[in-house]
Amino acid sequence: MSEPPTASPQTLSSVTVLGTGALGGFYGSRLLLGGCQVRFIARSDCAILRRDGLRVDSPLGDRHHAPIEVYAASDPVPASDCVLIGLKTTENHRLPELLRPLVHPGTIILNLQNGLTAEEELVAAFPEARVIGGVCFLCANKIGPGRIAHLDYGSIGLAPVHERDRHLLAPLMERLAAGGITTEELPSLADARWRKLAWNIPFNGLSVVLNANTDVIMADPDARRLATQLMTEVAQAAAACGHPFAPGFIAERLALTERMTPYAPSMRLDYLAHRPLEIEYLYRRPLREAQSRGLRLTAIEMLADQLTFLERHHQRNPEPGR
Amino acid sequence: MSEPPTASPQTLSSVTVLGTGALGGFYGSRLLLGGCQVRFIARSDCAILRRDGLRVDSPLGDRHHAPIEVYAASDPVPASDCVLIGLKTTENHRLPELLRPLVHPGTIILNLQNGLTAEEELVAAFPEARVIGGVCFLCANKIGPGRIAHLDYGSIGLAPVHERDRHLLAPLMERLAAGGITTEELPSLADARWRKLAWNIPFNGLSVVLNANTDVIMADPDARRLATQLMTEVAQAAAACGHPFAPGFIAERLALTERMTPYAPSMRLDYLAHRPLEIEYLYRRPLREAQSRGLRLTAIEMLADQLTFLERHHQRNPEPGR
Repeated sequence: MSEPPTASPQTLSSVTVLGTGALGGFYGSRLLLGGCQVRFIARSDCAILRRDGLRVDSPLGDRHHAPIEVYAASDPVPASDCVLIGLKTTENHRLPELLRPLVHPGTIILNLQNGLTAEEELVAAFPEARVIGGVCFLCANKIGPGRIAHLDYGSIGLAPVHERDRHLLAPLMERLAAGGITTEELPSLADARWRKLAWNIPFNGLSVVLNANTDVIMADPDARRLATQLMTEVAQAAAACGHPFAPGFIAERLALTERMTPYAPSMRLDYLAHRPLEIEYLYRRPLREAQSRGLRLTAIEMLADQLTFLERHHQRNPEPGR
Repeated sequence: MSEPPTASPQTLSSVTVLGTGALGGFYGSRLLLGGCQVRFIARSDCAILRRDGLRVDSPLGDRHHAPIEVYAASDPVPASDCVLIGLKTTENHRLPELLRPLVHPGTIILNLQNGLTAEEELVAAFPEARVIGGVCFLCANKIGPGRIAHLDYGSIGLAPVHERDRHLLAPLMERLAAGGITTEELPSLADARWRKLAWNIPFNGLSVVLNANTDVIMADPDARRLATQLMTEVAQAAAACGHPFAPGFIAERLALTERMTPYAPSMRLDYLAHRPLEIEYLYRRPLREAQSRGLRLTAIEMLADQLTFLERHHQRNPEPGR
């Protein structure tokens, strides 16, 4: 390598992917292609991944990785330079226990989850680790055990929680780039998380409550007004927390959503599949951040309460349709 | 009659019931029992009512009125002292046309609908009439053509739109009382309408959006918080419009709802039966009244927008479940 050690003081050679779902499977595949040693931790698909490997169908090219290194959460896993969190935030109560054997002094924890405050919890639980947040724009679904369909996008914006760890971005971005992933170094993780919430808060929640995809929401004047109102409250919260959106940001995001291919947000897929919803990190934590600045967000709070009710009663009542 | 003419300057001998559904059928039956001549106007059930009469099963006693005077809307109907509006507010765009042949100088129009501002429209359209508003507490369903099931309650609070018409209440209350209906003379119609909205706005809308009856809503901490938030906004609007609720009113209404038999609000029944929803008079008009006083009600607005979306898309998509 010709890079000076100041720009890339260490190389990244191994990554443990905690949670081999759509996100973990996709980026794990890309890191394999980028030359990393990748260790996949899987729960339900462990045996099939061991036997058949990992398949990722993608516009970037269909890939079949076999054999791959697969571990159950309870297995002893060799130390890796980086642990990539591929679990949904609904699993975050299990993270300390799951990460404990994987994190060593200096281990990079790469958190690709949506929502707010998960990184702060990681820093508090693992002060010996280096926590980096990634904001992904990825359309991918798990279509079967060990089978991922990558539909579109895939870029990641990256920033460290602590500025002292910013030098760790370069080797990570290098590996991702080698695997065909566009990356961007973010000046502020919180800025990017709030901007992503501007989309996630309205469209994830409304897609569940209104039982509709993004195109139907955008085509209906009342649902569109709801999305705009919710996005406006996210903007108020972001500004109150010191991360104001640029002028025109909301209009641009709405226009972008209107041009998008009809899309079922992940929370809608979770709801329809009777999986837990990411209400805590996508709604309650941003509400809490705003509240601590004296700001009450009535529309977001209402949507969060509706989602909590629907999740609770939907799960009790497994018949389709509600 | 021993009453002095000042207390009851005229008697009420005939009533035309416009719309023979659960409400019109029930009160029509009670007015027949109270000694009125009652003319029923019916749309879909006209032929069956003519042939079989009207059946009302009730804790007050089951009744079968046959034959009864039944008219189609297009028939010439003899002039009555009073026209009772038994249509839902979703039909109010048709009211001027339907009422035109029924209203003569001095005719009492008794409006028993929920929501705001319908009486003002009646006064504007029929300045020659005397408009009285009634706030009903009635649990009744139409269970078939010409068949009403009265479940519980039935009392009416009454007030004229114009104070000059207050003397018209006595003969009306007399007839209703003779038919077994408890009545109350209200000092202010608007006061009573706002107090009823305090229940209707949260529980009608939430029962549709959350697909749940009142008992499920009250038993769930998040849904209960939603109901409380919505009721609080109704209280703010009522106060801004000059009709403040008494202290403790909200807590008392919630406690009352908790003690109620599990109940499907009428909007939920309408939604499940793919009928139009009373969004305009129950939500949009109160929102407009508040807005004209500079008050924006975020939670009620959001619920109204959700209901409008759901009604629009539910009607387009007649499969059960959404």
